[in-house]
Amino acid sequence: MTKFNYPPEIAKLGHVALVSADLEKSLWFFRDVIGLEETREVDGVHYLRAWGDFEHHTLSITAGPESRIDHIGWKAKRSEDVENFATLLQDAGVEVDKIVAGEEAGQGDAIRFELPSGHRFEIYFEMEKPEPELHRKAVLKNQTYKAWAKGISPRRIDHVNLATSMDSKIITDFLAEKLGFKMREYLVAPDDSQISGWMSVTPLVHDVAIMKTQTAKTPHELHHLSYWLDNAQDVLRAADILCEHEIVFVGPGKHGISQAMYIYVKDPGSGVRLEIFSNGYLIFEPDWKPIKWTFDEMSTGFTYWGEQSGLNNPKDDETTLTAGFIRSSVK
Amino acid sequence: MTKFNYPPEIAKLGHVALVSADLEKSLWFFRDVIGLEETREVDGVHYLRAWGDFEHHTLSITAGPESRIDHIGWKAKRSEDVENFATLLQDAGVEVDKIVAGEEAGQGDAIRFELPSGHRFEIYFEMEKPEPELHRKAVLKNQTYKAWAKGISPRRIDHVNLATSMDSKIITDFLAEKLGFKMREYLVAPDDSQISGWMSVTPLVHDVAIMKTQTAKTPHELHHLSYWLDNAQDVLRAADILCEHEIVFVGPGKHGISQAMYIYVKDPGSGVRLEIFSNGYLIFEPDWKPIKWTFDEMSTGFTYWGEQSGLNNPKDDETTLTAGFIRSSVK
Amino acid sequence: MTKFNYPPEIAKLGHVALVSADLEKSLWFFRDVIGLEETREVDGVHYLRAWGDFEHHTLSITAGPESRIDHIGWKAKRSEDVENFATLLQDAGVEVDKIVAGEEAGQGDAIRFELPSGHRFEIYFEMEKPEPELHRKAVLKNQTYKAWAKGISPRRIDHVNLATSMDSKIITDFLAEKLGFKMREYLVAPDDSQISGWMSVTPLVHDVAIMKTQTAKTPHELHHLSYWLDNAQDVLRAADILCEHEIVFVGPGKHGISQAMYIYVKDPGSGVRLEIFSNGYLIFEPDWKPIKWTFDEMSTGFTYWGEQSGLNNPKDDETTLTAGFIRSSVK
Amino acid sequence: MTKFNYPPEIAKLGHVALVSADLEKSLWFFRDVIGLEETREVDGVHYLRAWGDFEHHTLSITAGPESRIDHIGWKAKRSEDVENFATLLQDAGVEVDKIVAGEEAGQGDAIRFELPSGHRFEIYFEMEKPEPELHRKAVLKNQTYKAWAKGISPRRIDHVNLATSMDSKIITDFLAEKLGFKMREYLVAPDDSQISGWMSVTPLVHDVAIMKTQTAKTPHELHHLSYWLDNAQDVLRAADILCEHEIVFVGPGKHGISQAMYIYVKDPGSGVRLEIFSNGYLIFEPDWKPIKWTFDEMSTGFTYWGEQSGLNNPKDDETTLTAGFIRSSVK
Repeated sequence: MTKFNYPPEIAKLGHVALVSADLEKSLWFFRDVIGLEETREVDGVHYLRAWGDFEHHTLSITAGPESRIDHIGWKAKRSEDVENFATLLQDAGVEVDKIVAGEEAGQGDAIRFELPSGHRFEIYFEMEKPEPELHRKAVLKNQTYKAWAKGISPRRIDHVNLATSMDSKIITDFLAEKLGFKMREYLVAPDDSQISGWMSVTPLVHDVAIMKTQTAKTPHELHHLSYWLDNAQDVLRAADILCEHEIVFVGPGKHGISQAMYIYVKDPGSGVRLEIFSNGYLIFEPDWKPIKWTFDEMSTGFTYWGEQSGLNNPKDDETTLTAGFIRSSVK
Repeated sequence: MTKFNYPPEIAKLGHVALVSADLEKSLWFFRDVIGLEETREVDGVHYLRAWGDFEHHTLSITAGPESRIDHIGWKAKRSEDVENFATLLQDAGVEVDKIVAGEEAGQGDAIRFELPSGHRFEIYFEMEKPEPELHRKAVLKNQTYKAWAKGISPRRIDHVNLATSMDSKIITDFLAEKLGFKMREYLVAPDDSQISGWMSVTPLVHDVAIMKTQTAKTPHELHHLSYWLDNAQDVLRAADILCEHEIVFVGPGKHGISQAMYIYVKDPGSGVRLEIFSNGYLIFEPDWKPIKWTFDEMSTGFTYWGEQSGLNNPKDDETTLTAGFIRSSVK
Repeated sequence: MTKFNYPPEIAKLGHVALVSADLEKSLWFFRDVIGLEETREVDGVHYLRAWGDFEHHTLSITAGPESRIDHIGWKAKRSEDVENFATLLQDAGVEVDKIVAGEEAGQGDAIRFELPSGHRFEIYFEMEKPEPELHRKAVLKNQTYKAWAKGISPRRIDHVNLATSMDSKIITDFLAEKLGFKMREYLVAPDDSQISGWMSVTPLVHDVAIMKTQTAKTPHELHHLSYWLDNAQDVLRAADILCEHEIVFVGPGKHGISQAMYIYVKDPGSGVRLEIFSNGYLIFEPDWKPIKWTFDEMSTGFTYWGEQSGLNNPKDDETTLTAGFIRSSVK
Repeated sequence: MTKFNYPPEIAKLGHVALVSADLEKSLWFFRDVIGLEETREVDGVHYLRAWGDFEHHTLSITAGPESRIDHIGWKAKRSEDVENFATLLQDAGVEVDKIVAGEEAGQGDAIRFELPSGHRFEIYFEMEKPEPELHRKAVLKNQTYKAWAKGISPRRIDHVNLATSMDSKIITDFLAEKLGFKMREYLVAPDDSQISGWMSVTPLVHDVAIMKTQTAKTPHELHHLSYWLDNAQDVLRAADILCEHEIVFVGPGKHGISQAMYIYVKDPGSGVRLEIFSNGYLIFEPDWKPIKWTFDEMSTGFTYWGEQSGLNNPKDDETTLTAGFIRSSVK
């Protein structure tokens, strides 16, 4: 095995690359209703970010025949970590594609590969942090765009939640062993096998969650991506705004797991589910013991109070198109 | 110089050890008005924490002839980091005291030493995470005490802010080079010399700030310690609660630097200043470029809006006793 | 018919008189969890009010073999209106009982009578506005008790909602013609017959609502009484507090009708349902046209967003004892 | 003296008619930053209202050589009250102008007259309640426009505050005796003479306040008009929005008098001061005893906490043009 001075590390969730079967509707949803800002459009790819995101994009949307998630991008901690992750993954038998600088706008050299489930991840380090045009630029020098310019107006991307039809432990083990994610909370079945895991490389309770769900039809789906709001009341304002746009949603409620407020809503263009997210706790403890939730506690874990979260709520119509991943191997 | 497999690292701010000239009043303030929970009392030392703090204590209060901060405790990332920090500091000519397990209740082996300014820091790794008695225990298994049991009811300790009469750069350099703190935002004088620095080892904008202030009479003072609330409105509720207790405070307002909401209030027992804190942004970027605030921008940096923060506000009576540090050398 | 210089008028909802089969549990719920203040206890009757209520009590609780609502008190606009209402009601064939000053603590001469449904109302004018003891007294001279002293800490009583098994129109007509309540919003069945009406004498959308429900077993039940909080987020904090006390509730959500935030929770002592209430709109228009909600719109009317409100939610267990009224005639 | 079956009554504050020396800037401020909706424009008069206002307009803005308030409109309780007020005022020697239906868009027959101070009031009853175009129309049938469509997005007009250089008691006596306003809270000088009075015909603590201020140069000025937000946090969001637009303001803070949250900000077009307002208490008591604030208590009365309100705050530059009234007599 290759030895590194430092094992490569993931610093944070970077972005989600969405392909939408109805680009105009997806742009309306993410730009006008959610209120993301568009950094720029390059070759039909719309690069979006929240007013408090620093990097070039945290969501990209492009048109495609079928809605799907192309990949999820993660920022490495050091420049050399991108290459080191490639080596580490190839040593482990994972196929790694090199993405040259500029292939994704704003981004330097990167790699893409698949989890054992087929979810495609990207790791990059270099990413532009472009300044907005003056009329959109925040007054504060530590903030990107003006806050509250339109729509729900979240501050930043928060996390992704992967759904799978396969054993979630295979995926969380891969994330832990290869990518350094730490388990924060997890849910087990009556037979003590793991159903779901919430993992992070940051003090957030999760940068990524993996859930084995009955509604997942493949091993490699996205349950949702999530953007963050600063206050619980901002989530209530989001509920008003969604209603005024006649968009159905689930929530608001508060998770037991993560202690965070939520609303789940689907992009009517792509069917991708978005979690509007606030509050919750941070884990600064290096000696954190993962919180185990038993099957009996699952309902409190998912919904501490409020309208019950997506998994069993009929309002969250699972027959609606929900963007899954396309495996490279079947491209 | 000693070589380590991994350089030792700080994981997070642990606790503040306060000595109060009026213990009863300080306990009234921190327990009843602020609403911290008392883990236990050992030999006259009251160990407190917020409802969302996990470790044994984030504040200790004991009686003394003069109010002062005894030390500020930091949790190391790994067990061996405590010893490694001792070596690293001694190599650099810093005098290091060993604190044996149990000398501070709940805590394992630790070290104490002084910054070049005389501020005394402690580094520990082992710390009990005691479960509360049933009637105070949270319903959620990822939360320590019941929320909202009394008073202002903050979630967790957030940061400390050190005031000094000396060149702040000497202190921030020490924090960066010896302890691994990263500069996040800083303020310079018209001659471009550094006045203040906001530094962290976590994604918080600051775990510790260093401010050279005209009101600091010594190099080693505490400007304030801070506890976190989840929502901006909780800060407004705190204002109501402080008024109902007839305690004068400064704020609410919003900082430009950190983008966080604040109220500054002094413990009437010890004179130590507390910042009630919420909102703000997180820095997940490994390639963060410190934000530089010039002297002209200082007023926006300290107070984006609201009642102007403590530094120049006459309500924040600087003649009131404010707890400083006692240097070991003058013990 | 008797002629008045001015027709007598109702000024506001005064109080609800509750008899509880488990007084201790009801006092725990209303004093410790909800956070009402006790003005005093007289002959086993506990007189409570919220921190922002001015009059002697807005809720009284006493022990009884069976939980029930004894009466709902309304304050008249002028002293002579009490007697004038007696005349007006007796002229209309309604039996009126005189309640002498002091029979209900703090209260002057009053009358009691029944709606056509059997709901017992009281009308009074004189009511003490006692000052709290110094340690509970608000700092502000326009406020009664200190805010946020304990529990959920609502500001004031808001409204009552009467459930009935009979034609609601008979009740709302009586309220309009005899007592001067104005219809603000109402709900009709597919055959255009009235199911529910929201009525007020104040700019609140409702001081009283009348709902014909399938779960009402008699014509004279209380669906809920309601206390007001200043902010939507206070309702979310109430949700946390109820969870920490392991009390099941419905909500939070937002009504379409009234546009107000809600949580419904039952006093575990008496089974009486309480609505924790905030936001919404005020009607200052003298030429208000009642808003008509059709059966198709009912679901939006009851629940604009959030966990669906009590009527059809299985969490709101209708088999749980819910305090009804005892008709005088069957006393 | 003329006798009425019922004395005429004011139901509510209707609107403020503003003349702006910089119409474009005023429209930018009130439509884009504050977020009022424009009902329509007629002959250069822009008629605006908040998303929760029902009537045709609560603010009108037109261009003029000098910024001023033309009049303040009040809605009468009954159609015949307009004529009856005319009679009552003329009986008292007040000059009354008739305004024919349509002279002010959307409005029926009205009267205009001056207070003893020269402040011009209008009384009307008929006013259109036009439905918005579909794309701006609220989803809820009891709400006018979609909420949160842009800017600060207040719900409704709240109150006006009149500044005067003359004895405020002459004005408040006129408001009480002729127009039926009830005194709710008042402030007295050390010699017990009245400085300010807060009065209402509704349960709001004030529909109108009268303040004798040292900065008033004439007897007939407007200190501010006010729009209402549902939540305290909405006031904090307003602070963010004003900062992003680089508009200076005073606050946020909380008044002792009225217990309401505030921000004071001036329309950069006309110099008229706007109070962004939330929370506070309601007075349903018909036997309310006005709250008297002494000179010693004034500071708490104006500012319970937060940045001190406008009267003595240097940020609230009194040399900036502030819209006063033009007396009819000097037209």
